[in-house]
Amino acid sequence: MNKAQNIYDNQEFFDGYKKLRDNQYSANNLEEKPALFSLAPDLQGKSVLDLGCGYGENCAEFKSLGATTVLGVDISEKMLAVATAEHSDIEFIRADMSDLSFLKGKYDVVFSSLALHYIEDFGTLAKNIYSLLNAGGYFIFSQEHPLTTAPIAGASWSRDSEGNVLHYNLTDYARSGRRSTMWIVDGVEKYHRTFSEIVNALVEAGFTIEKMLEPIPTKETIERDKSWEKDLHKPNFLLIKAKKPLSD
Amino acid sequence: MNKAQNIYDNQEFFDGYKKLRDNQYSANNLEEKPALFSLAPDLQGKSVLDLGCGYGENCAEFKSLGATTVLGVDISEKMLAVATAEHSDIEFIRADMSDLSFLKGKYDVVFSSLALHYIEDFGTLAKNIYSLLNAGGYFIFSQEHPLTTAPIAGASWSRDSEGNVLHYNLTDYARSGRRSTMWIVDGVEKYHRTFSEIVNALVEAGFTIEKMLEPIPTKETIERDKSWEKDLHKPNFLLIKAKKPLSD
Repeated sequence: MNKAQNIYDNQEFFDGYKKLRDNQYSANNLEEKPALFSLAPDLQGKSVLDLGCGYGENCAEFKSLGATTVLGVDISEKMLAVATAEHSDIEFIRADMSDLSFLKGKYDVVFSSLALHYIEDFGTLAKNIYSLLNAGGYFIFSQEHPLTTAPIAGASWSRDSEGNVLHYNLTDYARSGRRSTMWIVDGVEKYHRTFSEIVNALVEAGFTIEKMLEPIPTKETIERDKSWEKDLHKPNFLLIKAKKPLSD
Repeated sequence: MNKAQNIYDNQEFFDGYKKLRDNQYSANNLEEKPALFSLAPDLQGKSVLDLGCGYGENCAEFKSLGATTVLGVDISEKMLAVATAEHSDIEFIRADMSDLSFLKGKYDVVFSSLALHYIEDFGTLAKNIYSLLNAGGYFIFSQEHPLTTAPIAGASWSRDSEGNVLHYNLTDYARSGRRSTMWIVDGVEKYHRTFSEIVNALVEAGFTIEKMLEPIPTKETIERDKSWEKDLHKPNFLLIKAKKPLSD
């Protein structure tokens, strides 16, 4: 498997990203995070692995929800420096999640928030996660929505002369593969996959799909700021809860 | 459940549809049909139900693949008149698949080709199909791609001054519900559902998702006629193979 790009250790990206995450009205905080936690099973007494844990906020939340052990993995030194400083009671390991062979234990739940679109070989990753899970365990992840990652030229919207959104400019949905896009800085590398490629990779790894979510903004969010309405044309995130069956 | 619209008994629609289906280079023949049959399990000795069977061509194919009993159900009298005339060895019943309570037997495979987007309540239909299946049986269907059914104003493309496709004009993906569109004739009623709504309805009915397909044209098809390339921006069809587990 190829090494994933480590854009988060680019200083300019890191600074821009930190600002974005601090915004309480970000799509991350309003759409992705509530959806991710709505998929979580009872974590009481469970061991949790968080792939692409970033600042470790979710790790802390898993712990406060009762998880006994929580391990956060991230490729970025800068992100983990923040994570370690803010959450001294949680273990963090710096690693590229494209190679999880250093992990020896078994987990009840593997979470991954908005990191999998950086991984080229999702099929192998899904198989690796499957083998790290206890029977009956869950793989719960969010990623950029496939309609966001689809356009090779980058996501864009058509607007009228007053700036109102007319439609999302969808291209290249069925052309999966690497995307080099502008997000905070130029040249961020992501991988586009179709819905069917994601679902089939999970099924081939042995998982059962339990739930799929494409969160949209609440009524209140749209009333506060009309610009959120465009997420009803094209959602920002895809989330899946997949289960490792009790018996193979 | 509301009664489905019976647009196929509209003479103008029926004539236009017949012409479309007779075209060997239709998306139906080049993309949908090969994908549907690629999902079929071994049909030898199996009992098959085909919901929205239309002319009954697929029913005949299921029989030639070894199915012992094949029942075709369709809402349209005109379609079934053709089906009965062309396939005298197959049983056809005229019915609205929104109400399958008249069916008493059990089936090994339930197929449905390009008919489910006419049904308002997919969740109830999925549950009804689940109860009609033997344990270990399959529900295999194709439908218009959710990106096709999404726009409330109807599917449309942006093109440059020479007519080349720039992008698909995506709107309303997250606004599921009724769509009244122009297809052959005006006022054809369909229902848009997101990927997650389709997947979750199947899971809630008890099904396990085994495979998902979004077929694209072959290289040869695109070489013969460049206009097929636009299906790489937005596929025409979604197909799912779902299994009723052997034990609940």
